[in-house]
Amino acid sequence: MSVMIRPVILCGGAGTRLWPESRGTQAKQFLSLHGEESLFRQTLRRTPAGSAFLPPFVVCGDPHVVAVRDQMDGREAILLVEPIARNTAAAIALAVARADAEDLLLVMPSDHVIADVDAFHAAITLGADLARQDWLVTFGIAPDRPDTGFGYIASGGALEQGGFAVDRFVEKPPLEDAERMLAIGGYSWNAGIFLFRAGRMRDAMLEQCRAIFEAVEQSVAAGRYDGDAFYADASSFARAPSDSIDYAVMEKDDRVAVVPVSMGWSDLGSWQAVYNLAEAKDGNGNATTGDVFLHDAAGTLVRAGRKRVSVIGMRDVAVIVDGDDILVMPLDRSQEVREAVRARQSPPGPLTL
Amino acid sequence: MSVMIRPVILCGGAGTRLWPESRGTQAKQFLSLHGEESLFRQTLRRTPAGSAFLPPFVVCGDPHVVAVRDQMDGREAILLVEPIARNTAAAIALAVARADAEDLLLVMPSDHVIADVDAFHAAITLGADLARQDWLVTFGIAPDRPDTGFGYIASGGALEQGGFAVDRFVEKPPLEDAERMLAIGGYSWNAGIFLFRAGRMRDAMLEQCRAIFEAVEQSVAAGRYDGDAFYADASSFARAPSDSIDYAVMEKDDRVAVVPVSMGWSDLGSWQAVYNLAEAKDGNGNATTGDVFLHDAAGTLVRAGRKRVSVIGMRDVAVIVDGDDILVMPLDRSQEVREAVRARQSPPGPLTL
Repeated sequence: MSVMIRPVILCGGAGTRLWPESRGTQAKQFLSLHGEESLFRQTLRRTPAGSAFLPPFVVCGDPHVVAVRDQMDGREAILLVEPIARNTAAAIALAVARADAEDLLLVMPSDHVIADVDAFHAAITLGADLARQDWLVTFGIAPDRPDTGFGYIASGGALEQGGFAVDRFVEKPPLEDAERMLAIGGYSWNAGIFLFRAGRMRDAMLEQCRAIFEAVEQSVAAGRYDGDAFYADASSFARAPSDSIDYAVMEKDDRVAVVPVSMGWSDLGSWQAVYNLAEAKDGNGNATTGDVFLHDAAGTLVRAGRKRVSVIGMRDVAVIVDGDDILVMPLDRSQEVREAVRARQSPPGPLTL
Repeated sequence: MSVMIRPVILCGGAGTRLWPESRGTQAKQFLSLHGEESLFRQTLRRTPAGSAFLPPFVVCGDPHVVAVRDQMDGREAILLVEPIARNTAAAIALAVARADAEDLLLVMPSDHVIADVDAFHAAITLGADLARQDWLVTFGIAPDRPDTGFGYIASGGALEQGGFAVDRFVEKPPLEDAERMLAIGGYSWNAGIFLFRAGRMRDAMLEQCRAIFEAVEQSVAAGRYDGDAFYADASSFARAPSDSIDYAVMEKDDRVAVVPVSMGWSDLGSWQAVYNLAEAKDGNGNATTGDVFLHDAAGTLVRAGRKRVSVIGMRDVAVIVDGDDILVMPLDRSQEVREAVRARQSPPGPLTL
């Protein structure tokens, strides 16, 4: 690549669907859920320092500053600290407000897996061409199954340089619609990866979600640096309405492009996804980490943490150990982790008097 | 009851089928597996100090002396310490060798549940009459299912005082035989509870398993007291062949009686048995102890130890936590715990050079 791009790594997620490992300051992006390296480190490594990429902006909350610094491994970066989580529109606005207007910003979640980084880089090169022509660029993942957990992007007309104008965004669909979109083609998953000129996004935000951008801009004006970290001002940032960049801008703007890319992407959105993507499985399809004893087990995901787990005669279950918490469930019910999170994180109720 | 009986509590078992809770010095009999009280304390309470019972003999290994003393709760007892485990024949020989010939000894495992203690006491009263007439008395449990995990006792002729002469002992049977015995009646489970005059058993042992008794007798002659604990001499005790009292004496002696009794007995021989006997189950048949969160779980046994366990969408499984060990398995595979025990307790193999 011959362009200089500023990576913007969104690091504010809680990743509660991967509870109990992901929680509090030890959020999903900082965990080794696929391979030895944390997802955050993998994300960093995708846009290495050097000719193509400027030092990244890392947008995160105060509770995660320590983990971010630790996992930067000394690489130069600018931390943009959100005083409060206000969804992706405000997070991106923070990066936009700190950037030069001509900067190309490459927004990436910090908790995804991309197996084929070369394919990603090729897509970025194409996307950068489009971004310089003031397209807001999304990268669309070629779907390989009718997943109902993602939003979809419908491609419109092909662009001369490559990629497509976006016809419309489709919210997380019912299965029937997902199957139909997979069958007819021309749809890709919205992975939340974007590329645009900062000034172009600023204009779009002032047009489409001015309240968000102005609140964030004020929080930047009243913010302060502490070493490599820029702390946005809390009271003004808190005035920004909470909205996703998709709702706030992408679905409304009329010059949005999609660059479809097949790059071994996964959002590792559940323990089922972690299991599916696990590379080192035994002959019975068990994926284990830590001190695990299996007897007649198949299709299991067992993560022992610092404990010892023994599994006898189980099929297709997850056993996840972290600290003093142990989670046991069928893998295909991974979405229901939220029930445990809700129960475990809710404060004790008032005493009945 | 108007007889004075010396309880002999066999406390040397390892209880490995209830791993990981039962292990090492923290053996099954010292755990609270049914109700709040440990099985050992429940066993003690079944023969309370007072008119009917002398202070008990507690036969145990050195590693369990601390737990025994702790759980005696100040009650008078004599600890008979086996230098090495040599099965029930040697353990009982140790009690016999320390007893007066005219003592009636009531031998009881320390890790069983008996719900109806009154029925047990009534059976003891009858058994004591027989024991004074030099019967070796066994208490036979009325079977309620064709269990293949127990030995069976076939009743022979009815005795005038009550009970029956034993026709024969049946080893753990195949299911077909167990079903037949249940159907035709006259069979009971061998629960390992015995009552006899000490001198009578001494004679029987000298007749049927002289090597065991003489080795144990020598270990007593060379033994020593340390407070309330009598330590048998190690080298002579170790010479006693390892055998069960059933094989060594009961199956060979020709004056063995059985007193059938229905007393809510269970040997709690597996996690399935612990589950079956658990009294406090929720509306979905879940039996839990400790900090457990359940979502759409049914028929589970979850023992959280000092950890927190969350179970989602599981049926009929056991999740047992103890210290750093976590065991997950279907309840109906509880017998296979031995696979985990073997793996977890075996030392690491030699390095391949």
